[in-house]
Amino acid sequence: MRPVSKILLSVLMAATTHAADPLPSWNDTSPKKAIIEFVKSVTTKGSADFVPAPERIATFDNDGCLWAEQPMYFQAFFIFDRIKQLAPQHPEWKTEEPFASVLKGDHKGALAGGEEALIKMTMATHTGMTTDEFNEIATDWVTTAKHPETGKLYTEMVYQPMLELLAYLRANDFKTFIVSGGGIDFMRPWTERVYGIPPEQVVGSSVKTKFEMRDGEAVVMRIPELNFIDDKEGKPVGIQTHIGRRPIFSAGNSDGDLQMHQWTQAGDGPRFSLYVHHTDAEREWAYDRDSHIGRFDKGLDEAKAKGWTVVDMKNDWKVVFPE
Amino acid sequence: MRPVSKILLSVLMAATTHAADPLPSWNDTSPKKAIIEFVKSVTTKGSADFVPAPERIATFDNDGCLWAEQPMYFQAFFIFDRIKQLAPQHPEWKTEEPFASVLKGDHKGALAGGEEALIKMTMATHTGMTTDEFNEIATDWVTTAKHPETGKLYTEMVYQPMLELLAYLRANDFKTFIVSGGGIDFMRPWTERVYGIPPEQVVGSSVKTKFEMRDGEAVVMRIPELNFIDDKEGKPVGIQTHIGRRPIFSAGNSDGDLQMHQWTQAGDGPRFSLYVHHTDAEREWAYDRDSHIGRFDKGLDEAKAKGWTVVDMKNDWKVVFPE
Repeated sequence: MRPVSKILLSVLMAATTHAADPLPSWNDTSPKKAIIEFVKSVTTKGSADFVPAPERIATFDNDGCLWAEQPMYFQAFFIFDRIKQLAPQHPEWKTEEPFASVLKGDHKGALAGGEEALIKMTMATHTGMTTDEFNEIATDWVTTAKHPETGKLYTEMVYQPMLELLAYLRANDFKTFIVSGGGIDFMRPWTERVYGIPPEQVVGSSVKTKFEMRDGEAVVMRIPELNFIDDKEGKPVGIQTHIGRRPIFSAGNSDGDLQMHQWTQAGDGPRFSLYVHHTDAEREWAYDRDSHIGRFDKGLDEAKAKGWTVVDMKNDWKVVFPE
Repeated sequence: MRPVSKILLSVLMAATTHAADPLPSWNDTSPKKAIIEFVKSVTTKGSADFVPAPERIATFDNDGCLWAEQPMYFQAFFIFDRIKQLAPQHPEWKTEEPFASVLKGDHKGALAGGEEALIKMTMATHTGMTTDEFNEIATDWVTTAKHPETGKLYTEMVYQPMLELLAYLRANDFKTFIVSGGGIDFMRPWTERVYGIPPEQVVGSSVKTKFEMRDGEAVVMRIPELNFIDDKEGKPVGIQTHIGRRPIFSAGNSDGDLQMHQWTQAGDGPRFSLYVHHTDAEREWAYDRDSHIGRFDKGLDEAKAKGWTVVDMKNDWKVVFPE
């Protein structure tokens, strides 16, 4: 190709890119239209709804909103894998619940002890090492472990339409944050690569940590004590602690995100709250009001009453996972 | 002026800006040279010390590093002003210490009770309202209150050379954070305007907060309980909690910043730690090893032993405050 036509081609391509659909995996149904209309209104200078770029804060739940969460939270698979890995150093686990159930492959039994059992397993697997060491452990797992039903890496089970939404908001000078009940340091090692969200824009649940000098080297140790639960009423608190500015856009999928949406909506000016509704048993999973994981009941009622945007996965998304 | 010469002028001005000294208020002494050399080494592609932009995290202490801190922390003036303002609603304060001393104008007496008295006064003045209400209170104060000795707004007592350093780092794709023992929500209302640092990049001490519905409106209440002290050993913990990535550049001025520097230095690759040494009794205040506020003793020893950059305010800075 001669230089002149090369230039022409690149100009044409740039024009095409500019005109391209920013949300190609979304059907042209009402959620897509509402998102684009909102983004246009807050980014159009002179519009009554214009919001200066630094105030364009968007917060996203992770489990069930950016990646899947069935048949159980992916971090629970990490916990079980870690328990199996650490078992040789803990012979007592053979008879001690909930560890004994995990080692027998009985995940339901392990979770039967409810929150207490889950916290016990989290402390046993997420603490006692430095932050750098934990970072490496989580990175190793997430780059190798496969989902038992799909055989995919967990990071391949992210929602393509939501990746496009994140990119579209950032292209319009939004700052995108994760605000998840999941472990903050479990997510941080991979959110930048997978979602384009850097560690400092991840808000999540945490254990306490402690600075110390170990053999003359500065380390931060993870200690077996809960620090913060970033779920339900915790989400606005997490947002206030980490961001200090109210979001104008929030996205979630369960009752655990309701208070985040309420906090977003309570601000002045234009606000957008989005709920992903899991309606697609064929391409993903269908669940809502009666689900143990990602229960969507009060949130669904309030979304309907307040006119928030509810995404019907089956009808509103062309694809679910990246192809 | 005719269009052509206007264009010419703007081209010339752009060229001048490009070649301009990025740190004009710094003398050409070793700290300035070390800063520029470091920034060049981590931003030069192909250099062995190159650091990708997302990892260029820079953390700055606030009191005594970005703004002054004498004769006492500026937030203490805020506390005293608030106590005087709230006194009519608290007749009991007339006889209750440390409030009684404050109301008599005896600041030293009020602080004689040490940490316990300070926490008592902080809780009385910083909690019991929503985060939005506190934001407004802090904004009102910082835009009107004057320093008793200089008669300046407190935000005019920021260090011009440090403002230039922040801007220089950001121009080289560093992300600048405050990591201060001061109150996170006391700083956030003005750090963006004064330092160019948005609320989500401020790490500081905090009280606990709680989400609730008040008259049907979502609010986050500030409650009278300490949440986190972002000083000394707390600084690496605050950095890990909020940023989740180790800084490659840190700046402070006291022993309270020593652990932050140690944490910065413990990472791989190029690292820069800077200490501002208050040596200028004429233009500011001179204090170090024996000072009650901003004691700089262990930090000074370690900086010398490790070869960190120590800024001698008197000799290394052309100006102290913006003119």
